[in-house]
Amino acid sequence: MGKVITQLSMSLDGFVASPTDGVEHLFDWYSNGPVRVETPGTGGPAAFLVSEASADHVREMIDGTAALVVGRRLFDHTGGWGGGHPLDAPVFVVTHSVPEGWPREDAPFTFVTDGVESAIAQASAVAGDKAVGVAGPNIAQQAINAGLVDEIRVDLVPVLLGEGIRFFDNLTGAPVKLDNPRIIEGDRVTHLYYRVVR
Amino acid sequence: MGKVITQLSMSLDGFVASPTDGVEHLFDWYSNGPVRVETPGTGGPAAFLVSEASADHVREMIDGTAALVVGRRLFDHTGGWGGGHPLDAPVFVVTHSVPEGWPREDAPFTFVTDGVESAIAQASAVAGDKAVGVAGPNIAQQAINAGLVDEIRVDLVPVLLGEGIRFFDNLTGAPVKLDNPRIIEGDRVTHLYYRVVR
Repeated sequence: MGKVITQLSMSLDGFVASPTDGVEHLFDWYSNGPVRVETPGTGGPAAFLVSEASADHVREMIDGTAALVVGRRLFDHTGGWGGGHPLDAPVFVVTHSVPEGWPREDAPFTFVTDGVESAIAQASAVAGDKAVGVAGPNIAQQAINAGLVDEIRVDLVPVLLGEGIRFFDNLTGAPVKLDNPRIIEGDRVTHLYYRVVR
Repeated sequence: MGKVITQLSMSLDGFVASPTDGVEHLFDWYSNGPVRVETPGTGGPAAFLVSEASADHVREMIDGTAALVVGRRLFDHTGGWGGGHPLDAPVFVVTHSVPEGWPREDAPFTFVTDGVESAIAQASAVAGDKAVGVAGPNIAQQAINAGLVDEIRVDLVPVLLGEGIRFFDNLTGAPVKLDNPRIIEGDRVTHLYYRVVR
């Protein structure tokens, strides 16, 4: 079975977005380099422009992820990525109720109303040997608390934001031990891959 | 003039101590390696036992730091390091009032009652071309907010603590931009040196 991975861009002081969901500074590394990496999906940007080091990181994310589990907040915030997703993978949305107008036949979105564990199980069945990606922070926290996350990838951005939405909040099972990270040095970002120790 | 550096061991979720000032997990890297690095001072441990990579990092800290600025809380918590300090450098304690029994002729502690800016100025005068170290988190935050910190060094520990005392809290001047870090890969720690962009 593939790994369950949660990955977000985070400031050095732990924030993945401003209090109003802004990503100023945090996403700079997605567009500050010479290497063009096309995204396979229709939702979101057609390509990223990143450093050579980050290109490998992004390609691994694109090629290695076969299904996504996201929270309802992220789904709403992105407007359901216009019915697609940058990674062109089936998306399982954890929600209390199915939003109006969904599901749609032309969009690979499944709405899961019985919790994150069920969503990850369904996503894993689809993903096979490839990874399941989990986002955003609230759903990632639920998955970490349920012991379902195999790897945490932090795109650590050299800025202190002072306030905002944290990647790691409301952890109920701490301390959570992690292995030494694999480190990839980008430009305006340090990619850190931490395996969760069980 | 030397740099003003603040450096602390921090969990991936941003904590430098437990709610009760515990440092479980956070200081493991100071005693998990084969390389013995003697500390020059009388306060604290006589030596650290660290990995080869961390040894260079610790030696740079010891050799490069010529004066320290600390908060009253850290001074009280360590009991004034028994009158010495592991780095054997003069210590400037920022405090509202001079503690009873201090200053002492046999201990290089100066009590500064007119704020962190004054303490850093006094420490810089002593340090010459070498660095001034600033600790713990509260006094570091005050120094960052006052624009007095040149470099932030994070000893990033692969653990999620869930709660505790944060390195970066109460920042009033955010966003604070940092340069790409210098990275040193230790064992159970990643040393990250960030220069503050002015």
